[in-house]
Amino acid sequence: MTEQIYSQYPPPIPEDLSSQIALYVKNWTAEHGLLVRPSAKQVTADANPNNVLATNAPVSLFPSPFPRKLFEQAQSLQTVYNELLIEVDDFLANLWKIHLEVKAEGYAHEHTLGLFRSDYMLDAATDTVKQVEFNTISSSFGGLSSRVAELHTELLSFPSAEKPLLPSLSPKTEASVKQLPPPNKAVPTLARGLATAHKAYGPSKSDPPLPLCIIFLVQPDERNIFDQLALSTHIHKYHSIPTFRLPTTSVLTSTKIGNTPSRPLIYTPPFAPTQQYEVTTVYFRALYAPSEYTSPSIWAARHHLERSCATKCPSILLHLSGSKKVQQILTSTTPADILASFLPNTSKSTLDSLRSTFSPQFSMSDDDASGLALATDPKTSQNYVLKPQREGGGNNIYKHNIPPFLASIPKDQYKQYILMELIHPPKTAHNTVLRSDGEVVSGEVISELGIFGTALWKTTKAKAGEEGGGEGKRVFPEILHNEEGGYLMRTKASGSDEGGVAAGFSSLDSVVLYDEEDFA
Amino acid sequence: MTEQIYSQYPPPIPEDLSSQIALYVKNWTAEHGLLVRPSAKQVTADANPNNVLATNAPVSLFPSPFPRKLFEQAQSLQTVYNELLIEVDDFLANLWKIHLEVKAEGYAHEHTLGLFRSDYMLDAATDTVKQVEFNTISSSFGGLSSRVAELHTELLSFPSAEKPLLPSLSPKTEASVKQLPPPNKAVPTLARGLATAHKAYGPSKSDPPLPLCIIFLVQPDERNIFDQLALSTHIHKYHSIPTFRLPTTSVLTSTKIGNTPSRPLIYTPPFAPTQQYEVTTVYFRALYAPSEYTSPSIWAARHHLERSCATKCPSILLHLSGSKKVQQILTSTTPADILASFLPNTSKSTLDSLRSTFSPQFSMSDDDASGLALATDPKTSQNYVLKPQREGGGNNIYKHNIPPFLASIPKDQYKQYILMELIHPPKTAHNTVLRSDGEVVSGEVISELGIFGTALWKTTKAKAGEEGGGEGKRVFPEILHNEEGGYLMRTKASGSDEGGVAAGFSSLDSVVLYDEEDFA
Repeated sequence: MTEQIYSQYPPPIPEDLSSQIALYVKNWTAEHGLLVRPSAKQVTADANPNNVLATNAPVSLFPSPFPRKLFEQAQSLQTVYNELLIEVDDFLANLWKIHLEVKAEGYAHEHTLGLFRSDYMLDAATDTVKQVEFNTISSSFGGLSSRVAELHTELLSFPSAEKPLLPSLSPKTEASVKQLPPPNKAVPTLARGLATAHKAYGPSKSDPPLPLCIIFLVQPDERNIFDQLALSTHIHKYHSIPTFRLPTTSVLTSTKIGNTPSRPLIYTPPFAPTQQYEVTTVYFRALYAPSEYTSPSIWAARHHLERSCATKCPSILLHLSGSKKVQQILTSTTPADILASFLPNTSKSTLDSLRSTFSPQFSMSDDDASGLALATDPKTSQNYVLKPQREGGGNNIYKHNIPPFLASIPKDQYKQYILMELIHPPKTAHNTVLRSDGEVVSGEVISELGIFGTALWKTTKAKAGEEGGGEGKRVFPEILHNEEGGYLMRTKASGSDEGGVAAGFSSLDSVVLYDEEDFA
Repeated sequence: MTEQIYSQYPPPIPEDLSSQIALYVKNWTAEHGLLVRPSAKQVTADANPNNVLATNAPVSLFPSPFPRKLFEQAQSLQTVYNELLIEVDDFLANLWKIHLEVKAEGYAHEHTLGLFRSDYMLDAATDTVKQVEFNTISSSFGGLSSRVAELHTELLSFPSAEKPLLPSLSPKTEASVKQLPPPNKAVPTLARGLATAHKAYGPSKSDPPLPLCIIFLVQPDERNIFDQLALSTHIHKYHSIPTFRLPTTSVLTSTKIGNTPSRPLIYTPPFAPTQQYEVTTVYFRALYAPSEYTSPSIWAARHHLERSCATKCPSILLHLSGSKKVQQILTSTTPADILASFLPNTSKSTLDSLRSTFSPQFSMSDDDASGLALATDPKTSQNYVLKPQREGGGNNIYKHNIPPFLASIPKDQYKQYILMELIHPPKTAHNTVLRSDGEVVSGEVISELGIFGTALWKTTKAKAGEEGGGEGKRVFPEILHNEEGGYLMRTKASGSDEGGVAAGFSSLDSVVLYDEEDFA
């Protein structure tokens, strides 16, 4: 049934119509800020000396089908995932504090803010969604993905909702709101997260008090700037909070830590040297990747921000909570009681729903006989991928290649690998994409659905050895805000290899939800 | 007083701040669709083969001061000007019908729509506004100028309304709504004009009935497309009326006139050959300039549209009503009673207000002794410019050069000229502009204020010879809609010569209104 649905939508489109839709999309994207700055490959710096040009973000011409019940499941789990990350973060924080005991300063911030995005793929074989990644820093595309949902809504209602040019997902369904992408609340949700952190910070801690602001910490040559501006514009317009864009290279020149015990972060706009603002919240849209830490001064900048009492989104610990290693521990063969211990107030059915989104993972070490058995059997291995534990450590081995590969290496190297069940996205999924250079390309695709959520919590203040310090007597952090809202659909050209992604295109997309009975 | 105000605003800005404002504006314009397609000079076609790039429309970094009372006067006159044009149009129509009497077809349309823009300059010498032009076709920039008002409002409220970085027009005035540009209602006003015409058209006149639509008639390579999209998007979103963009080169292939006596205009989207729409309204954003009529087929296209019963915005006659010749007749030394005869229900004070916006003009023919006297006197000639009657007919002669010039030519050539009182824009006006290529330039400027208005009326159906045919027994057209709303400020680099405009820049701008008592 799933493949049948994916094979029939979007329907074949005559070339004339396709080029007209592409023209419509080119104009719409520029009119509505669904843009990126062009790459140096598309427009040379010589041809664009003042960096004024903009071009469309890569977008699919059609939304992608997605099962309604799984979309809603992913939505419903977001606040649970938010809470799980809060607990993991707090747990790490307590461990960390043991290390910090002999260090004098400790943490100055009282709150931590998370703007999260949990990414899933549809597994057509089992009719489930499987988590691919949980982003705890710089969860991007909330701004632009909201606009893609609007774009697709308008395209599917063009020239009128009653008589649209483009066909519906299900020919059985009357033209109705059901056949349009669900409204995407990512911008107000993410902006509300930042505004909530701003308010929770309380009054200025400087003497004399300073006006308060939020800082967007950004990369100096950000091409995805319009995604970020969607949030700061919303915050300015609906929350009346000043926001400033601070490039990572200017942290040490434009900010200082105030001379009071609470360590407020003071920002001086470089173009208004007589004005000062106190930063309530630092929103990281930078410094997430190792490649950004290019000099000691960038490390110093991160340390400087971390020392201050500004609320960080995320803190260093929360940044770590999202690391692949932590996710692997949580989502692999974790005993049920560890998950429950992190989420003691969560019902069994919700925990089961959460677990159903984990792709089964097995270690290849001696003490996990079940993983070894699955991997060495030519039949069962068909459903797995063997991955080196270290990231970037080599190539994955797929399916029938796993047993002979294992036979060819010494047994004591097995523990360097983990075995993961394959996700089977719909094979017949296809779409047409307008790339940023204006080319229109069609082909088979795989899609990832991201669900946005935000959470704000009070950092546990207890020291190691006291309550909150040891695992046995943890107190749970006080959650002030925990909200789900908005989604991102990303659609890429699928390579012929399982899991491989061809360089053909990667685009922003939206969804049209279906119920199986629409097609029954 | 006026010069004092213009000399002090905008205030001198340090270069650092100016480049930061320019950066803010570059990002804002792309985020909010305040864009144009780049010129071939800025980006070659080779570098932009799919025409996806966009760049900021040229905009001033600051709004321009304007006297509140004159701004409000210009607003209050707009519906009067609308009506005047309706009457002139109707008068021309009646004259034209005499010509058409022997022609069988006559006009098929029942309504005429005008989207007008009346352009003024501030005369600092007399503290009045003087009309420069009345646009009856393709009155542009309603879409983008609305966004400039928003841009300036946000800039003047950045980073917060309570503590803006940029100073106010009057240092005496508290930061308040008074110091921000007035909201610009151009988009809803112009869209409502089109929607009103669409509704007035009534049901389909085709058999069987067809769905109805509005056509935007556009130039094939329009760079100012986002100005137009602002209107069609608004019409789609708030009036739920289908709109299509029709390039002038496709009129004869994409439309035909239906085979019924009422002559409906039928549009077939080129990308959906099985669908048909009946066009209620043709909105001309093209075919206004002689240079566009490049081939007989373009003339045929205009004739074809004109033959149909679709409401034209504007009709050919209304297009003519806005011609320089008609305006000269109305605004020069017209006897008062002619103006009053066109506007019989308009109060004397309103007519006086209207006349105060005319720049005095004099013919140089023998029977106008007053013009001759003013022009030949070295003292009075200081206040005038001598213009050749034919457009493009040569150079203007200014001020003290007029008497010796007249003395140097034969008297029988005098009638080829008209004498116009000079408009004196504030000499100290200055501003800073972000050009479309990203360059930031500052200098002395002159500004033109445009006020938008829309009107819809029923075309007089009486034939020549019957009522409505002769001037003596005119019936007045039935005005169904007459509304003022929205403004355009355009600010250009001023040359050193009076009236000359340097090629330096021309930008979209907005206004901050002042009352003299703010400075008293």
